[in-house]
Amino acid sequence: MTLFGLLGFKATAHALTVKQVAPQFWWAGMKNPELQILLYGNGIASSDVTLSGKDISIKEIVRQDNPNYLLLYLDLSEAGPQHFDITLRQGKKSTVIPYELKERTRKGSDIQGFTSSDVLYLIMPDRFANGNPENDVVEGMRENKINREDLFARHGGDLKGVEDHLDYISDLGATAIWLNPIQENDMESGSYHGYAITDYYQIDRRFGTNADFRQLVDKAHQKDLKVVMDMIFNHCGSENYLFKDKPSKDWFNFKSEYVQTSFKTASVMDIHASSYEKKIATDGWFTQVMPDFNQRNRHVARYLIQSSIWWIEYAGINGIRQDTHPYADYDFMSEWCKEVLEEYPNFNIVGETWLNSNVLVSYWQKDSRLAAPKNSNLPTVMDFPLTDLMAKAFDEETTDWANGLYRLYDYHTQDLVYANPMNLLIFLDNHDTSRFGRTEELAQNLTRYKQAMTFLLTTRGIPQIYYGTEILMDGDKANGDGCLRKDFPGGWQGDKTDCFKAEGRTSLQNEAYDFTRKLLQWRKNNEAIGKGSMKHFSIAHGTYVYQREYKGKSVVVIMNGTDERQVLDLTPYKEILPQTSATDFLSGQTIKLEEKLELDKRATLLLCF
Amino acid sequence: MTLFGLLGFKATAHALTVKQVAPQFWWAGMKNPELQILLYGNGIASSDVTLSGKDISIKEIVRQDNPNYLLLYLDLSEAGPQHFDITLRQGKKSTVIPYELKERTRKGSDIQGFTSSDVLYLIMPDRFANGNPENDVVEGMRENKINREDLFARHGGDLKGVEDHLDYISDLGATAIWLNPIQENDMESGSYHGYAITDYYQIDRRFGTNADFRQLVDKAHQKDLKVVMDMIFNHCGSENYLFKDKPSKDWFNFKSEYVQTSFKTASVMDIHASSYEKKIATDGWFTQVMPDFNQRNRHVARYLIQSSIWWIEYAGINGIRQDTHPYADYDFMSEWCKEVLEEYPNFNIVGETWLNSNVLVSYWQKDSRLAAPKNSNLPTVMDFPLTDLMAKAFDEETTDWANGLYRLYDYHTQDLVYANPMNLLIFLDNHDTSRFGRTEELAQNLTRYKQAMTFLLTTRGIPQIYYGTEILMDGDKANGDGCLRKDFPGGWQGDKTDCFKAEGRTSLQNEAYDFTRKLLQWRKNNEAIGKGSMKHFSIAHGTYVYQREYKGKSVVVIMNGTDERQVLDLTPYKEILPQTSATDFLSGQTIKLEEKLELDKRATLLLCF
Repeated sequence: MTLFGLLGFKATAHALTVKQVAPQFWWAGMKNPELQILLYGNGIASSDVTLSGKDISIKEIVRQDNPNYLLLYLDLSEAGPQHFDITLRQGKKSTVIPYELKERTRKGSDIQGFTSSDVLYLIMPDRFANGNPENDVVEGMRENKINREDLFARHGGDLKGVEDHLDYISDLGATAIWLNPIQENDMESGSYHGYAITDYYQIDRRFGTNADFRQLVDKAHQKDLKVVMDMIFNHCGSENYLFKDKPSKDWFNFKSEYVQTSFKTASVMDIHASSYEKKIATDGWFTQVMPDFNQRNRHVARYLIQSSIWWIEYAGINGIRQDTHPYADYDFMSEWCKEVLEEYPNFNIVGETWLNSNVLVSYWQKDSRLAAPKNSNLPTVMDFPLTDLMAKAFDEETTDWANGLYRLYDYHTQDLVYANPMNLLIFLDNHDTSRFGRTEELAQNLTRYKQAMTFLLTTRGIPQIYYGTEILMDGDKANGDGCLRKDFPGGWQGDKTDCFKAEGRTSLQNEAYDFTRKLLQWRKNNEAIGKGSMKHFSIAHGTYVYQREYKGKSVVVIMNGTDERQVLDLTPYKEILPQTSATDFLSGQTIKLEEKLELDKRATLLLCF
Repeated sequence: MTLFGLLGFKATAHALTVKQVAPQFWWAGMKNPELQILLYGNGIASSDVTLSGKDISIKEIVRQDNPNYLLLYLDLSEAGPQHFDITLRQGKKSTVIPYELKERTRKGSDIQGFTSSDVLYLIMPDRFANGNPENDVVEGMRENKINREDLFARHGGDLKGVEDHLDYISDLGATAIWLNPIQENDMESGSYHGYAITDYYQIDRRFGTNADFRQLVDKAHQKDLKVVMDMIFNHCGSENYLFKDKPSKDWFNFKSEYVQTSFKTASVMDIHASSYEKKIATDGWFTQVMPDFNQRNRHVARYLIQSSIWWIEYAGINGIRQDTHPYADYDFMSEWCKEVLEEYPNFNIVGETWLNSNVLVSYWQKDSRLAAPKNSNLPTVMDFPLTDLMAKAFDEETTDWANGLYRLYDYHTQDLVYANPMNLLIFLDNHDTSRFGRTEELAQNLTRYKQAMTFLLTTRGIPQIYYGTEILMDGDKANGDGCLRKDFPGGWQGDKTDCFKAEGRTSLQNEAYDFTRKLLQWRKNNEAIGKGSMKHFSIAHGTYVYQREYKGKSVVVIMNGTDERQVLDLTPYKEILPQTSATDFLSGQTIKLEEKLELDKRATLLLCF
């Protein structure tokens, strides 16, 4: 797609053609006064450049190997909101590019990031709901068909589909939405998942327009739902113009030649890693069709940083989930986080830190003592090790020292490794893992589901629920990623069942949904859970006991991890049981808390004080 | 036993009886000029105390609840070597206690601790060799019989037995001996293991005398063997006079009343631990017959610290292994390590940090970033997580991301958590774990044995070998601790087989022994292994490749963790393969290192450059 015309360039009789202007506009009054404008068009590099703006100066004009690019670096430190022209001239040929510095509509500090008081609801937009069948197929795009029978094809879900179900999400009790990437993925195939971006400044038209996305964010905010956008700085799609007609070879790693990553990103922080491993892990490409950005190139770095700030400022999003965070250059990612948080001090960023131990994950969190004196500046990391443990913990009988809930206790005893355990994104599953209901049988085991959901929503961290988990959707990664990303029933016109409505759900699904809703609604304003400290006890009688507490209000969770009735001696727990009875939030019953406490098999109590 | 008489006290006609003087002597010129002398005798607390020494002053005389104790704190800052008298007087009754400040025979800095250039050989003295049948039964001691059929009874092994086999140990190639505790354990039963000390200043007479121990250390040193002594500060045996007739109730935790520890010492560093868990873990007793010292009592602290310094100074040992290190008071243990290392700057101490994750173990090592600003001052910690991994790694087929040797690679990628990965005691087994040969079948699998031993002796850390592993002794902890502590065949007169000699060993045992000896002898002066950096590569073709390097000399280990022949592409390893061929130390063969390398199933190469 060409922006010429769309942006209404005033062209002279002998016009230079400018196909891309990135970003298409900017704002006056940003903390960082520098602006990079990337111009892309045939042979434009040899143009003379002049600017008409007031209090705007050109710091630098960069021409790279490729004659089709011009990079302008402007100094906006004195510039107010205004329209101005960028004029390119080559002899008699010239083009005037109208540009705008908009007025900011809010202060950077007004943007409130997601926190541990929130619960994120993760949606894969192609697979949630098809609100606008008109944009299922977009003329001129490479993958221009839908096929709901094929789990690797596009299914037609879109932003309108999300917007239409904001009430469902809000009613369920989530307080934020994380959307898998929605920027343009104009790839030949597999574009549905969104992780191969071909234009960083454009919503994929099969999902909607940039304006549609901004409208979705506004509507979400009206319903007290925050919005988290997925971004990918490590790589782009191979159909991205920046790769197909690259500004210079060093915009991509290995001089733009495909070399496969090892996926062993532990090498980044591994003190024993060989030079080979260090290089291949981060500079190797994620796949052949996902060329790996060289963020050590300052122009690449600036381009990526600006794209994220553009979306925050444009749409008012509340957070970013950064894909494959450790695969990109550490110093660049650190600088990016720093700059975003300087511009938006209350923002939040969560990095996809898919590593298998708390040591390695913790390294990526802001202020990690293991990384010091380096600092990732990344506020939130993903607690993948906990996901692995939860996948086992609720299926096993809990014995004192090894299995079941002991795994969770044991893991939490190691939380000192994290600079900020409250800023861990915790999740039973996401679009890349087996669903918590790996098989239909597991998915429909409500005892397991309820214990897991109760734990997820009461332990430290920022819980994230993957769409459909609340209606017991199943999926095993062993059968391919598509199985993890099935359509939400009812999201498409003509769907036989509509799980967005109680009457469309089975009684088992309603039991799961209602349980989840009850917990989520209760969690919303529960500061003991959202902000409180955690105090826990080693496993006794196969039972895990912990407290969350904030300013004198507390919640005590008592979870029997065995298939036997247990009788708990309450003596050890006196410090967290201030009264001799309490109401169990889950059952509504009054529980006597004297010397002993009888627990049914797999019982869970949620006592509020 | 009473020291009266033994020490030749000059008693008047009406004598006060002094049963214990601890320590029995001391040295002039120690860095810490303070000396605590604990005096124990009926009713002596009400005595007047006078000293005859030159330049010695009494800083403090402490009387506690129990009238049978006097604690003298002397200031020795100006005192030279000398004999002096301590006189106790009560009306007409008096006692003169002759005391000696000896001259130091070496500087504190002359004592050289064990390092990663060493390999420790761990011996349970009761079970290794019975060099002196005369002391098998000692009149007046509570457990005064031996029974080699009973794995919980004493078997008669002793210091002379160790001394008699120093050549065996030296010839095997170990460079240090760690002895399980040898101080007096005058307990009713189970005294063989030594972990219930009844006199901190006395070698158990069934093992030998204090002088015998000093002689053993001297002889070991003559053979270039260091000696590591096992100490226990967390608890003592319930028959210890300090417990039976305790100076005051607060010498032991929970006011000297038995309360069981939870064994969950993670609670010490667990940021979520309840007050209950924190207290029970460290203040709870290890067992009912092992009362738990309260090291926050400054008299207890001083008593324990002095006992360790006494043994170092008296016998010239090279290291201490501290039992149940995290069960004792953190601040006390930190202070103890600091004081020992101030007195003996080249000494080494290894704490038994039996915790199941590197996060928790690392917390206990000197300069841990996770513990900061606290500092344990403990130079060496035990790498229990690695032991668990090694118990699986060599039995499984190695797949890229999960099993077999991948476990070792994966674990080492996390070594950044350790303040000093070279100061990790690494071991396949010890007296408390299942033997590496858990079953006879596993023990006799030489492929497994050789790979494990090669790994142990070439990776980072300080290897420790448990006696008998080199002759394929088996033992499963599931069958009780006694099974892990069987007699070394040939250590007793009349043993049917003598595994100290080649002709007493089976051919399988000789193969294991010879392999181990060859590696150990080679390791002795190999600085690449003993001091070198480590560089490793992620698993490819089920094969683990790593290099150790020091000042240009290197060793490259290539280990096939699969039961298949593998063909390795050597391109990734160029940075550690400086030549196109090398000699494999294990086979003596020349290995071509061109594009590809063929490896037999489970092959191990040890290439030296």
